[in-house]
Amino acid sequence: MTRVGDMDAEEFRREAHRIVDWIADYLAHPEKFRVLSSARPGDIRDALPASAPEHGEPFDRVFADFERTIVPGLTHWNHPGFFAYFATSASGPGILAETLAAGLNVQAMLWRTSPAATELEDVTLGWLARLIGLPPAFGGVIYDTASISTLHALACARTVSVPHIRSRGLSGTRGLRVYFSEDAHSSVEKAIVLLGIGLDGACRIPVDARRAMRVEALERAIEEDLSAGRTPAAVVATAGTTSTTAVDPVAPIADVCRRHDLWLHVDAAYAGAAAMLPECRQWFDGMERADSIVINPHKWLFTPFDLSVLFCRRMDVLHETFSLVPEYLRTPESPRVRNLMDTGIQLGRRFRALKLWMILRYFGADGIRARLAEHMRLARLFASWVDADQDFERLADVPFSVVCFRCAPARVPEQALDALNEQLLDRVNASGEVFLSHTKLDGKLALRLAVCQIRTTESHVAQAWELLSREAAIVLSSASPERP
Amino acid sequence: MTRVGDMDAEEFRREAHRIVDWIADYLAHPEKFRVLSSARPGDIRDALPASAPEHGEPFDRVFADFERTIVPGLTHWNHPGFFAYFATSASGPGILAETLAAGLNVQAMLWRTSPAATELEDVTLGWLARLIGLPPAFGGVIYDTASISTLHALACARTVSVPHIRSRGLSGTRGLRVYFSEDAHSSVEKAIVLLGIGLDGACRIPVDARRAMRVEALERAIEEDLSAGRTPAAVVATAGTTSTTAVDPVAPIADVCRRHDLWLHVDAAYAGAAAMLPECRQWFDGMERADSIVINPHKWLFTPFDLSVLFCRRMDVLHETFSLVPEYLRTPESPRVRNLMDTGIQLGRRFRALKLWMILRYFGADGIRARLAEHMRLARLFASWVDADQDFERLADVPFSVVCFRCAPARVPEQALDALNEQLLDRVNASGEVFLSHTKLDGKLALRLAVCQIRTTESHVAQAWELLSREAAIVLSSASPERP
Repeated sequence: MTRVGDMDAEEFRREAHRIVDWIADYLAHPEKFRVLSSARPGDIRDALPASAPEHGEPFDRVFADFERTIVPGLTHWNHPGFFAYFATSASGPGILAETLAAGLNVQAMLWRTSPAATELEDVTLGWLARLIGLPPAFGGVIYDTASISTLHALACARTVSVPHIRSRGLSGTRGLRVYFSEDAHSSVEKAIVLLGIGLDGACRIPVDARRAMRVEALERAIEEDLSAGRTPAAVVATAGTTSTTAVDPVAPIADVCRRHDLWLHVDAAYAGAAAMLPECRQWFDGMERADSIVINPHKWLFTPFDLSVLFCRRMDVLHETFSLVPEYLRTPESPRVRNLMDTGIQLGRRFRALKLWMILRYFGADGIRARLAEHMRLARLFASWVDADQDFERLADVPFSVVCFRCAPARVPEQALDALNEQLLDRVNASGEVFLSHTKLDGKLALRLAVCQIRTTESHVAQAWELLSREAAIVLSSASPERP
Repeated sequence: MTRVGDMDAEEFRREAHRIVDWIADYLAHPEKFRVLSSARPGDIRDALPASAPEHGEPFDRVFADFERTIVPGLTHWNHPGFFAYFATSASGPGILAETLAAGLNVQAMLWRTSPAATELEDVTLGWLARLIGLPPAFGGVIYDTASISTLHALACARTVSVPHIRSRGLSGTRGLRVYFSEDAHSSVEKAIVLLGIGLDGACRIPVDARRAMRVEALERAIEEDLSAGRTPAAVVATAGTTSTTAVDPVAPIADVCRRHDLWLHVDAAYAGAAAMLPECRQWFDGMERADSIVINPHKWLFTPFDLSVLFCRRMDVLHETFSLVPEYLRTPESPRVRNLMDTGIQLGRRFRALKLWMILRYFGADGIRARLAEHMRLARLFASWVDADQDFERLADVPFSVVCFRCAPARVPEQALDALNEQLLDRVNASGEVFLSHTKLDGKLALRLAVCQIRTTESHVAQAWELLSREAAIVLSSASPERP
């Protein structure tokens, strides 16, 4: 027996076996839970004591409370009926890898604090870069979220644009400008705020009918800013926007960036994985000319949350922007080795590469491609049902695995459609069988069905469609399409 | 059988049981591995193929490669001989909770996307706040790392100091100033760079003989800046510095901050947990008057990496600084509920509260206090051995569980001591039995022994001391104290 302050080793073993059985049962039948929790605000808080226990409790009692109090308050992201936002997936090999990472608890701030974590990150990102067709000029770093990856990208753009940024900050500057389409993700604006540029420096470029950035409008905006003495710094092109998965024309945007010497960041957080498929490669034409690219394996590469990848062509700028080494973090190996803390705002780093490596090996490149292709097939299938139904209307193209649509029978006036669709959305989500989210497109409320869950099959998509049709009939047959 | 694109459920169950057995064996005898890996740069990279496999592989083959290639390249943070940096601990209940969190994969950006994750975070941070004696005025948020917590704190200070920061950024401002002791953590400077303030705005205040911030020097610096037309914004006081765990005088610093209306951020990332002990509470006097405080349960609260807590008295400012809600993230519950994405740069959030909740319940408040007290006892014991040995010298007080010391026999001249201690450090670390790190204090190389690993017992500390004594004798008996 080796009890030295921690849980007893045999108790750990017993409880760990119990827990993985629970997870195995859960993953075998996630649909036995409601996908969207029916908890009301305060339910979970009210069920828990206001203070920590003074004395420790046996783990089985803690686990019993977990099952009784916490589980009913969960929204189940692993449910095959999860179609909201970008559905994510904790695949089996990903969960196994996360379990190992939790047990090992290595913290890879320095090469020395776990050589394998640092080098496996290099190797695995090299694999991913190759799979999506990036040239060897790109380096990469794993962060937690796309918000953080994009923050790092725009920080690099700021470094390139503002002399002495590190010492003098932004105080002497004026009119730094970042360009992105009106459909770009909110994380771009959050980064602009955090970096001290301010939203006055955020330049939203209009989109065309396919919701892609208008390149001529971008060019015009840059020229106007230059005439006015402002300082264009970066363009964010999105390959797969959050609302509709529209794709900005990356190659022409790259031409504009080259002409004006601007940092090009490509937000492919969701759709970037699809660059692994030859039939999708066209959407990413020009991405290889970007300065930085974000892709989130925790979105559509079956990787448990969190793992976001920033590919960067100018690792020297990333290093220059973020490296700051106090004495207590110097090691004998530097500078022969890469220390991950030198390229990020976060000092500490989990061993995230392990899950991506295990997933790529377990599924293989062809296995990943087959799963992505299947999700796209299911989305197109759902879109075909929408298109064939007179009471429904599709509101955007389906380049990947997300369908934007609404219920819009000819007999219901346009001004009543938002309320009707909101009611429809509330009703299908209240079923506990599916979870969809929404967006607004040209002022119209659109329902979104995102097929990215690894456990989602054709039968789940069909079930979602049946539920939508049934609930739409009920809503339409009621006296008024207003909320009850 | 429920195979729907993921690993087969029974294969998952089988592999999961195998993995938890591996972890249980590992935790029962972590010392069977070398604490510091003996891998040479490139070893792991060179052992791995340059491309992902085209076809998937059975998980047992992936796991075999993990054991053969990855494990020898790990530095073992769970080894009881890990005394470097701030040793961290993945305790048993913490690992079990992380395993559950990986299996559930909930993403708590919105209350709706997992009510239990949001409310458990509230409840658990309430428990922790109470345990360390904070008044109810404090709210809290869980982030990943202290670097991110401190970044958020200083972003809040910037919001309060700079009118229209969100729209206009920092371009119109000049001379924003942040004050912190010369021993403050590098994350403070990294935040100042990222926020666009620039290191010219970083004001390092000298420390006294105990390495605590000189309050009169702080006061003088602020007044000089005010006279020069600069804008004091925030003071970071450290309770437990990284080099020596020295404590800045928080209460007098809080007085200065009140007088000048400055944001006070307390960096208690490592030592904050000790505020749970009555005998340590004195060190944190005044912390309850801070605007924000960072404490990292992944440092000295036995929580697997990562989990950092920012307590904040002004949650409205945090919300004002970071909230930005696009249409696709609006929910019917807002604004009745708290949405965690509103108080952070990161949109996506792992279910981190689960592990802290399980740890506090499993060990109980008294169990946590007992473990912290034991680590402090062991550090004082080690310090007493250093003090009693003529060949060694202690270089700092030991308020918590870190000892700074060096080998410094009277017969060796001062100018040779750094090389001697570097050699000593390299030798003990090469043993694979212990891992210590270093710092510099008044230009002198100091060895650091941090007792924070939950599996570390008196025998491990004694072993470290024996090893240091033995290797020191060898180094001292060699012809020259220079590196061979």
